[in-house]
Amino acid sequence: MNTKLVFHILGLILRVEAVLMLPSAAIGFASRTGDGPDFLLAAAITLAVGQALTFLPRKGAKMQARDGFATVGLGWIVLSLFGALPYVFSGVIPNYIDAVFETVSGFTTTGATVLYPLEGLPTGVLFWRAQTQWMGGVGVLVLALALIPKLGEGSVYLMRAESPGPIKSKLTPRIGDTAKILYFIYIGLTVAETLCLRLAGMNWYEALTHAFTTVSTGGFSVRNASIAAYDSMVIDWIIIVFMFLSGVNFALLFYAVRRNFKAVFESEELRSYTIMTVAAVALIVVNLVAHAGWALDAETITDATFQVVTLMTTTGYMTYDYVLWPTFAQTVLILVMFAGACAGSTAGGVKQIRVVLLFKNLHREIQRILHPRSVKTIRCDGERVEEPILSGITLFFFAYIMLLLVGTLVVAWDDVGFTAAFTASLTCISNVGPAFDILGPTSNFSMLSGVSKIVLSLNMLLGRLEIMPLLLLVFPGLWKKR
Amino acid sequence: MNTKLVFHILGLILRVEAVLMLPSAAIGFASRTGDGPDFLLAAAITLAVGQALTFLPRKGAKMQARDGFATVGLGWIVLSLFGALPYVFSGVIPNYIDAVFETVSGFTTTGATVLYPLEGLPTGVLFWRAQTQWMGGVGVLVLALALIPKLGEGSVYLMRAESPGPIKSKLTPRIGDTAKILYFIYIGLTVAETLCLRLAGMNWYEALTHAFTTVSTGGFSVRNASIAAYDSMVIDWIIIVFMFLSGVNFALLFYAVRRNFKAVFESEELRSYTIMTVAAVALIVVNLVAHAGWALDAETITDATFQVVTLMTTTGYMTYDYVLWPTFAQTVLILVMFAGACAGSTAGGVKQIRVVLLFKNLHREIQRILHPRSVKTIRCDGERVEEPILSGITLFFFAYIMLLLVGTLVVAWDDVGFTAAFTASLTCISNVGPAFDILGPTSNFSMLSGVSKIVLSLNMLLGRLEIMPLLLLVFPGLWKKR
Repeated sequence: MNTKLVFHILGLILRVEAVLMLPSAAIGFASRTGDGPDFLLAAAITLAVGQALTFLPRKGAKMQARDGFATVGLGWIVLSLFGALPYVFSGVIPNYIDAVFETVSGFTTTGATVLYPLEGLPTGVLFWRAQTQWMGGVGVLVLALALIPKLGEGSVYLMRAESPGPIKSKLTPRIGDTAKILYFIYIGLTVAETLCLRLAGMNWYEALTHAFTTVSTGGFSVRNASIAAYDSMVIDWIIIVFMFLSGVNFALLFYAVRRNFKAVFESEELRSYTIMTVAAVALIVVNLVAHAGWALDAETITDATFQVVTLMTTTGYMTYDYVLWPTFAQTVLILVMFAGACAGSTAGGVKQIRVVLLFKNLHREIQRILHPRSVKTIRCDGERVEEPILSGITLFFFAYIMLLLVGTLVVAWDDVGFTAAFTASLTCISNVGPAFDILGPTSNFSMLSGVSKIVLSLNMLLGRLEIMPLLLLVFPGLWKKR
Repeated sequence: MNTKLVFHILGLILRVEAVLMLPSAAIGFASRTGDGPDFLLAAAITLAVGQALTFLPRKGAKMQARDGFATVGLGWIVLSLFGALPYVFSGVIPNYIDAVFETVSGFTTTGATVLYPLEGLPTGVLFWRAQTQWMGGVGVLVLALALIPKLGEGSVYLMRAESPGPIKSKLTPRIGDTAKILYFIYIGLTVAETLCLRLAGMNWYEALTHAFTTVSTGGFSVRNASIAAYDSMVIDWIIIVFMFLSGVNFALLFYAVRRNFKAVFESEELRSYTIMTVAAVALIVVNLVAHAGWALDAETITDATFQVVTLMTTTGYMTYDYVLWPTFAQTVLILVMFAGACAGSTAGGVKQIRVVLLFKNLHREIQRILHPRSVKTIRCDGERVEEPILSGITLFFFAYIMLLLVGTLVVAWDDVGFTAAFTASLTCISNVGPAFDILGPTSNFSMLSGVSKIVLSLNMLLGRLEIMPLLLLVFPGLWKKR
């Protein structure tokens, strides 16, 4: 690894993070909730450390793939460690481990929280909490890179390691242009949703923070009861639509803007995402009506749709405490948390494209027994998928399950019951937010031990960065000099 | 598929099954529990149908791999459908679906039951119940084949499709000789355990039935309280040792008999199996002592060891109701149920060799990022593992998880809670027996719906036959004539 170059970049990123703390400082001062100075102090420390790191001589050597992975893995850890400072300084989360958990949950757009109640907390802190999700949505590092001097070709590796999905779509030949397009869509969605929510009755502050945490599929709310606080079917559906859109591959949204609808309708991933959403809603509605005596009306359908979309896009808002639903409906929700939404979106989970390709691969394996001599290539959206990508996906799936089980085991030590431990680990690695049983959406993670919170924080990062950039850090081979 | 040949063989197998019902008939008559005639009727019907199928003209064409898979898949289903008759005729399980569930649970050596209480049931029926597990342990079809005229090369495919594990070890060049060696070991273990249990205080009947269900890692007991009924640490440890041995690859046991200890000690699978067993026991003992206030004594260690070994070898006896343990200890047990014991043994689960190779494969994937230009082959026990086997294993793992989740979803409809639904599906596909929560070892599966029982029966068969032979049956391509 080119250690000097990596640390130099980490320094640049910290400097950017310091600057990004300033809006929260401004809001803290403006709303006179007393947290303005805390943000200034946090920003000053972050800036100082960032400055010190950039003093390290940066070697001119080119960046390689492994350096990109290392920068991303270390970058997200460092960002979280410093991003936690405002929580501690303001006294909102005095325990540093808890503060890091909340920050990681923000940057990874998970939405799991140790905070309750939210209402009454300093405005700047709540804004920072929402802002971490918005920054994490498309990639903190890519965001930082857009603001710092060009790294040349190195930025390709950074973006690859940070952006989700097994197949990286190139919208334009130049990486910088692709990043700009993504930001254009992201900001466009944020503005549009802010306006819609404002029109539906939220104030500007609530509309903006909820837009931040919807389009990033983060799920942090500024209200204790999350979206249930508004008790408005209009707001429910606005958020359902924007959550669903934010779970679509941004490349497809770009095609849609460009009126290239053929590419949109032919996307196998979008089809799988849509079918799974509709199927999950249908199954839950049938279960609620047949088993639990709910009326078959707009409210039932809205509640089912909201909960499915919020968990499948790995957002994690709440309008109904689904822990009260029958086992079947809850199990459907757990399954959609596994799958997640599309690659190339802000959502977490295994991702639809991987699910599609895993099933195609399994189907081919069966065909091999029936027709031993035929060798088939696997295609997706008409294009051939290379074998290394296919085997990488199956191994990704294995690693995902293993990390899920390790997390389950660690949380189980807190004696919360298997369902709570399993879904806590799942909700973190899939970047959803709430879990089930006693860690359900009306509860929070503050009851867990420090060790559990650290391991769940790691699972959030592993899920967000799709395992490899973080897993590599523990391999001594990475740290060897070239 | 060569349908005529396949059906002809199914007929032969049924004829063998009819004969194998006779010992139970004899025991029924001898013990005057009134179930003798029921077994004669069941045997007569099975024989008649078998006879009718063998009247079908058998085509001389050679058997191919797909025919072997189809015969095994269909064979196990047909055997279970007829093996259920004695339960129905004797009135012990009047509901046919329940009776099939119990029979599948027997043949697949799962041990999940719908029966309670056991004591007081007709002796012939309880013997049949234990005998199904003993027959299923090394393969009902292989057993049948040993008793019917040679199929020529076709039997290779049958044995391959029926015996567990991704890599088929050839002990001898001739398949018949290998089968004989396996039976020699199997019968040897059974006789040895029967004697040990008799000496430890069981009567001959209980000693033999428990030996049947130990060496097959089945777990059916003739006592209501399973092994806890004997309240004897000596019996506990005899069974622990024989369960553990039955979870070892029989090829290794053969080498041990031949005093080839080098092969035994160098086996990576045996090492992984041993380490996981010891680690699981240690974790549970620490948890019980630190969290639940148990004394660190022989009883605690025996209880922990027994429960780990019984679930990891997928036997499923009980000496302690582990549902009362803390979440952590229970989670450890759930994890060992996933992994299972060695391939080439009578145990179920994913199997240790697959776990070992999955981790090696993942490690190689990580190395690929660090050293993009190096191409490494994966070795196990010094021998190179071919790429198709590796990709087959990762896809097997994916299919395993998918089937586990489908089973969970179906059982969830019965509103038993997520933990019970998930572990019921897991215990069936891993061929263990008891589940957790309200489906724990002191409970049974009779509370579930017919649909759940059918799906769980399928999961037991899918687990025992390692998915493919059964999954193939739903593909129209299989049924096409060549």
